[in-house]
Amino acid sequence: MKFCPACGQSVTRSIPPGDHLPRHVCSSCGVIHYENPKVIVGCIPEWQDKIVLCKRAIEPRLGYWTFPAGFMENGETLQQAAARESLEEALARVRIDSLMAIVHVLHAHQVHVMFRGTLLDPEIGAGPESLEVGLYAEHEIPWQDIAFRSVEFTLRRYFEDRRNGGTGVHFYDIE
Amino acid sequence: MKFCPACGQSVTRSIPPGDHLPRHVCSSCGVIHYENPKVIVGCIPEWQDKIVLCKRAIEPRLGYWTFPAGFMENGETLQQAAARESLEEALARVRIDSLMAIVHVLHAHQVHVMFRGTLLDPEIGAGPESLEVGLYAEHEIPWQDIAFRSVEFTLRRYFEDRRNGGTGVHFYDIE
Repeated sequence: MKFCPACGQSVTRSIPPGDHLPRHVCSSCGVIHYENPKVIVGCIPEWQDKIVLCKRAIEPRLGYWTFPAGFMENGETLQQAAARESLEEALARVRIDSLMAIVHVLHAHQVHVMFRGTLLDPEIGAGPESLEVGLYAEHEIPWQDIAFRSVEFTLRRYFEDRRNGGTGVHFYDIE
Repeated sequence: MKFCPACGQSVTRSIPPGDHLPRHVCSSCGVIHYENPKVIVGCIPEWQDKIVLCKRAIEPRLGYWTFPAGFMENGETLQQAAARESLEEALARVRIDSLMAIVHVLHAHQVHVMFRGTLLDPEIGAGPESLEVGLYAEHEIPWQDIAFRSVEFTLRRYFEDRRNGGTGVHFYDIE
């Protein structure tokens, strides 16, 4: 941030009185502009013993694989965001089930929130952000070509939980 | 947002190509500025059969009661944020335990993430954002003067869970 979104004048970086972190402060109108982590939401849509994976058509990590996930929007719940991303990226109608994983991607200022999900019917297809989508059993997962560490962490916990009957929430921090 | 934080020129609100929601788009440099929900993190620090509550010294809801909570900062985990808020608002050293509640405050574009916690020692005090702090048993909770609906929801689930042995995550949506 170089300019104040409120008045258009230049901002400086300083610690406001009573605060403990440097913020963008407008040199003209004095407004303090806070920057906070963004939330990414995803789910693993299950159909019998298979799950939905998408090959990314966009950067970052174009050509690599993920389950449907993306930025949470204003005005929606985490569950609504996860269902929307499944529809957009895999044309997949899903029921969002239990919360499965929360991954802090500290350097990227992101919190990744992942749910278990159930595909409501097996008719899926590639949305504009996907090169291809498909249903994959555990032994078919392209582990060498997973797009993000948070996705690999969640997938591994998912299959472990499925074997062990686990239903809890897993946390993982990426520095 | 009226002006582009990148170049200082005016922004307009329009749906970018390939998108589905109106965004702030710079009329000069073309940068798209996304706005996403912010994360509030809190915890209920427990000491024997009592919990920490703080009387707010700041708006909104000055003079009303809450457990320690506040905005998540870049570069910290949810648990670190919850512990930091306890230290700042109640001078309370806590261990963050299990995830307890996620409340979507849709109109405010906020996600409130609440943890169970354990006070490490009973030496607490009012930080600069609190008028007073104290340890309260269930029958002493000032239910009529709780600052936020997300806080009341979490407190009610907390005492129910303590009676029933519940350890799960509760969801609640506020329109």
